Amino acid sequence: MTSPVPDGPRTPDAGFASDNCAGAHPEILAALTAANEGYQGAYGDDAYTARLRDVVRRHFGDRAEAFPVFNGTGANVVALQAMSERWSSVICAEGSHINVDECGAAEKVAGLKLVPVPAPDGRLTPELVDRYAWGWGDVHHAQPAVVSLTQSTELGTVYTPEQIAALTAHAHERGMRVHMDGARIANAAASLGVPLRALTTDVGVDVLSFGGTKNGLLMGEAVVVLDPAAVRGLDFLRKAGMQLASKMRFISAQLVALLDGDLWLRNARHANAMAQRLAEAVRPLPGVRITRPVEANAVFAVLSSEAAARLREHYSFATWDEQTGEVRWMCSFATTEQEIEAFASALAKALAH
Amino acid sequence: MTSPVPDGPRTPDAGFASDNCAGAHPEILAALTAANEGYQGAYGDDAYTARLRDVVRRHFGDRAEAFPVFNGTGANVVALQAMSERWSSVICAEGSHINVDECGAAEKVAGLKLVPVPAPDGRLTPELVDRYAWGWGDVHHAQPAVVSLTQSTELGTVYTPEQIAALTAHAHERGMRVHMDGARIANAAASLGVPLRALTTDVGVDVLSFGGTKNGLLMGEAVVVLDPAAVRGLDFLRKAGMQLASKMRFISAQLVALLDGDLWLRNARHANAMAQRLAEAVRPLPGVRITRPVEANAVFAVLSSEAAARLREHYSFATWDEQTGEVRWMCSFATTEQEIEAFASALAKALAH
Amino acid sequence: MTSPVPDGPRTPDAGFASDNCAGAHPEILAALTAANEGYQGAYGDDAYTARLRDVVRRHFGDRAEAFPVFNGTGANVVALQAMSERWSSVICAEGSHINVDECGAAEKVAGLKLVPVPAPDGRLTPELVDRYAWGWGDVHHAQPAVVSLTQSTELGTVYTPEQIAALTAHAHERGMRVHMDGARIANAAASLGVPLRALTTDVGVDVLSFGGTKNGLLMGEAVVVLDPAAVRGLDFLRKAGMQLASKMRFISAQLVALLDGDLWLRNARHANAMAQRLAEAVRPLPGVRITRPVEANAVFAVLSSEAAARLREHYSFATWDEQTGEVRWMCSFATTEQEIEAFASALAKALAH
Amino acid sequence: MTSPVPDGPRTPDAGFASDNCAGAHPEILAALTAANEGYQGAYGDDAYTARLRDVVRRHFGDRAEAFPVFNGTGANVVALQAMSERWSSVICAEGSHINVDECGAAEKVAGLKLVPVPAPDGRLTPELVDRYAWGWGDVHHAQPAVVSLTQSTELGTVYTPEQIAALTAHAHERGMRVHMDGARIANAAASLGVPLRALTTDVGVDVLSFGGTKNGLLMGEAVVVLDPAAVRGLDFLRKAGMQLASKMRFISAQLVALLDGDLWLRNARHANAMAQRLAEAVRPLPGVRITRPVEANAVFAVLSSEAAARLREHYSFATWDEQTGEVRWMCSFATTEQEIEAFASALAKALAH
Repeated sequence: MTSPVPDGPRTPDAGFASDNCAGAHPEILAALTAANEGYQGAYGDDAYTARLRDVVRRHFGDRAEAFPVFNGTGANVVALQAMSERWSSVICAEGSHINVDECGAAEKVAGLKLVPVPAPDGRLTPELVDRYAWGWGDVHHAQPAVVSLTQSTELGTVYTPEQIAALTAHAHERGMRVHMDGARIANAAASLGVPLRALTTDVGVDVLSFGGTKNGLLMGEAVVVLDPAAVRGLDFLRKAGMQLASKMRFISAQLVALLDGDLWLRNARHANAMAQRLAEAVRPLPGVRITRPVEANAVFAVLSSEAAARLREHYSFATWDEQTGEVRWMCSFATTEQEIEAFASALAKALAH
Repeated sequence: MTSPVPDGPRTPDAGFASDNCAGAHPEILAALTAANEGYQGAYGDDAYTARLRDVVRRHFGDRAEAFPVFNGTGANVVALQAMSERWSSVICAEGSHINVDECGAAEKVAGLKLVPVPAPDGRLTPELVDRYAWGWGDVHHAQPAVVSLTQSTELGTVYTPEQIAALTAHAHERGMRVHMDGARIANAAASLGVPLRALTTDVGVDVLSFGGTKNGLLMGEAVVVLDPAAVRGLDFLRKAGMQLASKMRFISAQLVALLDGDLWLRNARHANAMAQRLAEAVRPLPGVRITRPVEANAVFAVLSSEAAARLREHYSFATWDEQTGEVRWMCSFATTEQEIEAFASALAKALAH
Repeated sequence: MTSPVPDGPRTPDAGFASDNCAGAHPEILAALTAANEGYQGAYGDDAYTARLRDVVRRHFGDRAEAFPVFNGTGANVVALQAMSERWSSVICAEGSHINVDECGAAEKVAGLKLVPVPAPDGRLTPELVDRYAWGWGDVHHAQPAVVSLTQSTELGTVYTPEQIAALTAHAHERGMRVHMDGARIANAAASLGVPLRALTTDVGVDVLSFGGTKNGLLMGEAVVVLDPAAVRGLDFLRKAGMQLASKMRFISAQLVALLDGDLWLRNARHANAMAQRLAEAVRPLPGVRITRPVEANAVFAVLSSEAAARLREHYSFATWDEQTGEVRWMCSFATTEQEIEAFASALAKALAH
Repeated sequence: MTSPVPDGPRTPDAGFASDNCAGAHPEILAALTAANEGYQGAYGDDAYTARLRDVVRRHFGDRAEAFPVFNGTGANVVALQAMSERWSSVICAEGSHINVDECGAAEKVAGLKLVPVPAPDGRLTPELVDRYAWGWGDVHHAQPAVVSLTQSTELGTVYTPEQIAALTAHAHERGMRVHMDGARIANAAASLGVPLRALTTDVGVDVLSFGGTKNGLLMGEAVVVLDPAAVRGLDFLRKAGMQLASKMRFISAQLVALLDGDLWLRNARHANAMAQRLAEAVRPLPGVRITRPVEANAVFAVLSSEAAARLREHYSFATWDEQTGEVRWMCSFATTEQEIEAFASALAKALAH
């Protein structure tokens, strides 16, 4: 028996609340159906995971190896553990997902010390890293072992390849490895018009959390190791970290569907374009101010709390900063122009009230 | 682009290797497709998860609450943490999944001390618990807080409701809570011909890891809390434990499809029946001996290592005990009579060689 | 056979490097000798630990309970764990000992997430706490459960009772508990001329890490619980945290010797007075600038790296900030006026070079 | 003010309860007093710790390195972490201290999985190890990395050098390292009449927890690394594990006093001899049966619970096995012949009642 959309109280539209509120892209569902034939070995010993290996190497180079996992927090924590020792610390932006949105998973599951760095636009720089990464060789001080950066950032901004290259060179000189939380790396690549490897393998990133869910998968991410010398025990850490899917074919088949052709790029381009359009639609309205460069699929804005409350009768969305009243609106592969028009219209009404 | 079954070297048939080697039941795929309409709140704030709440209460009683998670290890570790303190220990059978098949996740992620109890047929008893649970109040000794039992057991045996009731009464008297690893609870209920609550709520189990993946889901399990007083902080522990799905609707919709009608029971009955048929087909063959009661969907047998090697040219399956040569053959919702005939025939050839 | 001071290469004088570089006060050694009579129960079941209970209540009030431990990191980590849940975070000053000088013990041993707050003079305020403590009820965010403050601070400054009271009231209103790292609480009390309880029990501190080692003990600290409702399982956490001394009488007897009379105050007053004298001796010298208020037993100063290097031929001391050239000089119960004169004279020479 | 023995209710004599109930040997106290001169670098940068290095190498060979720590649990957990990965398991006897008497510290602090092996007389054998150490390379299974054995064992028995050599050869062949919990290694060496290295360095032990407290120290143990290739990051793990003493000279000076001459041997020989004498005094008494070979400083016996209760009016001691009524009586460096006579006489009365 299939499950129809259950009835229930009318709730605000979640379309701009997060790119997690969209469903799965139809090609992903089709891939799942296709992958449902017959028996396959469990835990990654299957044809789809084997195929994923090739697909990933096409994107990220011959040394790349992909480890499918369930979700982004899982990808990050497994990756960071594999890159570090029990006495390590991880340098990250203060507003990074691992620092504020994962319920302390890095500390609680992996015992990692995060060293948060204030980064006004979400981007780390070599200078910022220097101010917080110190004390190597001092037993009293957790040893900085990894710099973790997010691409695109939590603030909807994007690192250029040059900015990443400068960071990785700097980190490597100091004996640190570089992790990229790429929950939205496709949006960054689409925004910059470069292939995925231009933001990763080619500029010295060691390990990538490759995001699938926000870019159209039902669920599924992958830890992509770009430099095998940067990790240890990833296989074991994935299992002990409760991120090893038994029917892994169903994650791998989704990732293959995303990456084998250009679905990853089409989805990301569309989400980015919708964010641009949303920004354009919103910018002229009196009483709202866009607060961040719109470089990927997020629009940040400030409006009065009264207007926000009125808009929330129709749409759910995140408050980013209680004190400034900054809010976040996200677009996804599924966002339509009609939805943007309706949203902008509702916003105009909420502001005009 | 959908992903066709990738080509590759012919590999042995995984149909009897594990119930994880089957795909998803067609009704599950249909439910996923149905759930793919429109936007839904992320992280469980969606109509399918709300619906699951009702469905679960129908099965497990009005106090039951379900927390969907990704996999069985995740369900177990989140549940056990929520039931225990930082200084707790968990009494479990020596051969239990949490003890030997989860790469130490309970210890590594949750800091739990497992106290393994030799249990020849996989079942704990009050007497066995007493021998290993002691030292309450002694600060030198990790405090026994939870008894974890597996239904059906890792050895294909089943606890009767009476056996469970005796264990839970015993544990509760000593101030311990009872967790059930129900990765295959549906098989146990089908085997005994009782509803799910007869093995859980009605006999004093406090928290259940409800298994979906092995019973026909693409992926998805749930921690089902039967006594709310038995847990603390489960919501936070699920997130910090990297088991909170952003597009949770897709796990919940599968679980609804499994539990709303009788799919859970049809699948489990079928798998059990196939195991019976497999046992019958195998039992008369000279050179093979069935070693355990076939009470659920597993058949354990001993055969010569030469015969096992020959059979492995065609079928993959687990060696259970290196020293005795015991092996395990699993049936699933997808197993067909034809497959059993072919397997039995291949086994006969391997033995006759 | 006693061990005479071993010969070895002449090393720089450690007298101003840390209050840990002094030995034990003679009265402490005498107390150890006195406590060496006969047999005593192990692990705290001894007459000296019983006596300590009374002594501690005299200082901290009738509800206070002391748990002797080995060192300050141990006291902090045991206390913070007992005050928090597995999903908690701890708000602390960025430069606090738990954040930068304990090799990540709080994260690694206890899975705690520390939330560091920039605090220019080492002191937290309600406003600072508000900026970093947020997200209660949000499962994505580690839950702020404890505010940890250091008295006297790592920068040699002191919280007044009023400042502490404001912080504890603020924290309690938000459902948080307050921990005080009192590795140098005696110095703060001596500086302010108030009893220990005026800085703790009377102003709402819930749990104190009481420092002994830096104030003249051989080794030994205590977690002092001021509000029993603020902790859970401290006994177990001390043992599992490897901080339960088998021959505990020898820690308790030292603490009794420190706290029963006024040794704690004499030692702290002396150390503070020596720091004042050191500041006075140094202040007039050209080329050195005292950078922090001298409120306890530390003097912070900036001098040229060349002068610092020349001074280090004779004295070892900590560089506090590589970039500004700030250094730290500590005084202890053992510091003498002659040592200060000699140090000031060596500094004058190093500056005049 | 020194602390005289506090008054209090008369409590049972703890002289036979544990070797932890004795105080410190007078030579140890003298060494502390001698070490109290002047300033010394903190955290091990002191003359006594430097001296300890030489003394330890004299006993354990030129590659040995000692890391003083506070207590035995700390030594074990720091050592085992340094010898293992995050996904490792440790094979140990079921009754070992790390398994039953450390409140789960290995699991809780270090995330280690312990694999307890039933070992009737407390001694592991290669055959027993084989039965429990398996699954290398299987990501589902925590990887056996260390075999931990206790010398002398928790049951008062002793491994011969040959038995240890057989175990270490076996473990090394399988890629595992060998840890020795030597809380009472001195008693074993004294019992066998061999030097310490005959039980460690010379027979392939990789890392030793060297026990000081039970052999006459005030408090203090050391992790002694015998094969430097067996550990990683021990310095950091000691600090993060809250086992780094600031005034380390006071632990090192005690260890030097113990090991530089023959105090370690005199104390252990005496404790062993007293246990022999105790066994002789007790053996002829009707109603008591000695249950284990008396090879070190422990005597195990069975007597009626009534007799035990009567004896406990005068002496405290541990019940070892509730079900059999087995109890444990320990001797220490401080035990006197008079005390044994008094004890035996009290026991005779308790039995004759």
